[in-house]
Amino acid sequence: MLADVQKALDVIKQRELDRVFFVACGGSSSLMYTSQYVMDRESTAIDAYLYSSNEFVHCSPKKLNEKSLVILCSHYGKTPETVEAARFAREKGALTVSLTFDPESPLSQVSEHVIVYEDGKNSDFANESPAVMLELVFGLLAAREGNGKFNEIVSSLENLRPILNKAKEKTLADAKAFADSYKSEKIIYTMASGANYGIAYWFAICLLMEMQWIHSHALHAGEYFHGPFEVLDEDVPIIQLLGLDETRPLEERSLEFTQRYGKRIIVLDAKDFDLTGVAERVQGYIAPLVLQAVLRQYAEELATARQHPLSTRRYMWKVAY
Amino acid sequence: MLADVQKALDVIKQRELDRVFFVACGGSSSLMYTSQYVMDRESTAIDAYLYSSNEFVHCSPKKLNEKSLVILCSHYGKTPETVEAARFAREKGALTVSLTFDPESPLSQVSEHVIVYEDGKNSDFANESPAVMLELVFGLLAAREGNGKFNEIVSSLENLRPILNKAKEKTLADAKAFADSYKSEKIIYTMASGANYGIAYWFAICLLMEMQWIHSHALHAGEYFHGPFEVLDEDVPIIQLLGLDETRPLEERSLEFTQRYGKRIIVLDAKDFDLTGVAERVQGYIAPLVLQAVLRQYAEELATARQHPLSTRRYMWKVAY
Repeated sequence: MLADVQKALDVIKQRELDRVFFVACGGSSSLMYTSQYVMDRESTAIDAYLYSSNEFVHCSPKKLNEKSLVILCSHYGKTPETVEAARFAREKGALTVSLTFDPESPLSQVSEHVIVYEDGKNSDFANESPAVMLELVFGLLAAREGNGKFNEIVSSLENLRPILNKAKEKTLADAKAFADSYKSEKIIYTMASGANYGIAYWFAICLLMEMQWIHSHALHAGEYFHGPFEVLDEDVPIIQLLGLDETRPLEERSLEFTQRYGKRIIVLDAKDFDLTGVAERVQGYIAPLVLQAVLRQYAEELATARQHPLSTRRYMWKVAY
Repeated sequence: MLADVQKALDVIKQRELDRVFFVACGGSSSLMYTSQYVMDRESTAIDAYLYSSNEFVHCSPKKLNEKSLVILCSHYGKTPETVEAARFAREKGALTVSLTFDPESPLSQVSEHVIVYEDGKNSDFANESPAVMLELVFGLLAAREGNGKFNEIVSSLENLRPILNKAKEKTLADAKAFADSYKSEKIIYTMASGANYGIAYWFAICLLMEMQWIHSHALHAGEYFHGPFEVLDEDVPIIQLLGLDETRPLEERSLEFTQRYGKRIIVLDAKDFDLTGVAERVQGYIAPLVLQAVLRQYAEELATARQHPLSTRRYMWKVAY
């Protein structure tokens, strides 16, 4: 575990805290859906909220105060809304802990505690941002409520890199077949629930919409039968995620339906991967990270098949907004 | 105000409550996004959560207990997931208050307190479900925290029917023009933030996806610039909502961008309607109801232009799921 994470947890241990706010934008925010799910499932007394940074600042939650922990994340640490959210949270007296790849970034400068995570092909997965987020929430739960899963989370994350690599190897042919079959689609939905919903959201808004200019929407497997399912016909593509958390029955139910009436359903099931080394009672919280690694490879193959590199943008970093 | 609402508030007053859970599915859930926003903005100590019913039951939030108020809603009171959620909440000792149109429904039978709301062309708008939701949350805030906006909410809701009628009259020609111009679209996005996001969600999943089989997605105006905006070109239709709450700057920003690069942007701005009779400091919370009435008319005209009645279904109520 990174020294920065331990330092943040030491501060968290000593401070009276009754609420956590997860605040970020886009891809950085998507990781926090799992954190929110962890807090909902595991915490007996600490309330948790997830906000897009600009909504956080403008809504100005009345319960944000000196007993609040605000966890923020921005890869380059330059996202203006997240920098402003950190400044705003400190003004309200909250404890700010920010995750970023750049220790010199604006976000690093305005935050009380900074966790500089690793990233890239040679990094230790246990020190990348998805792992850090889990270490932080389980560290908080251990410190404040005696939750006993922290050590299992840490050891599972340390064992994760080879598991992710094997999952990617196992699905490489599937990813190539997906890319070939779906490269001309104008819209591709994603669907999940519980701990995995954030990954469906990430794939929809960052990989498909932002990086491939393909229309998308992250469907919630529970909400699906209360409106969205009517749009399904044999030609509508849906990527169905199945995780290992308590909401898996929702994902299984939507899968049964989409496979019954659809013919373009892509299934990614965390059960299909060898999770030896991941402690059984935290597998539901780790499954999203496995699904994310596999999905990333699907996006890479799709980008290749479409000759539309994942780095292509028309507005981001190019025009004012 | 309905006697049922007063009865529920009398019970709420006498009970020690520290959390509210808003639990429903689809259209019934969409109203609760505004309730959640109210609680975030106005409450000093009561935490609030919004769940789709099936996620609520399977996630089983650890903080759900005898100090929790669970507000549920289902129009016919037959939504199985919501009935199960009420049963589950009572089992955990929570106080259950359910909104429904049918006093004899399964939801009515399993809930501790039932509010039978009005609906239909001759009903009093102040007794319809969107009004009841606002009365409940501001009644709770008045009783538990001395929040002073309750009377303004009640009187504003009593004055709302003619305001909605005038807003619909004012936009009837626009609704017909929208229907004519957009009747062949395969995908139409909606966008909003804050108190209005639930209305964008409702229009996307219930009106467009469920009732018109048009692809859709409710974009959050704050998240928009962190992925989804890359999909915009001159041909992408987006219905942009502008409300009167504190997050309006987010909606104005996304509007400026979509109008700069898009040519199929439909704007519905709460500022364009005469809200005389709605107390100024609660207009941000009432604006979603005005936008909803106007949007409903847009959907009706679209259904007529497409010769696809809003009541058409292929799966709902027809097949097992």
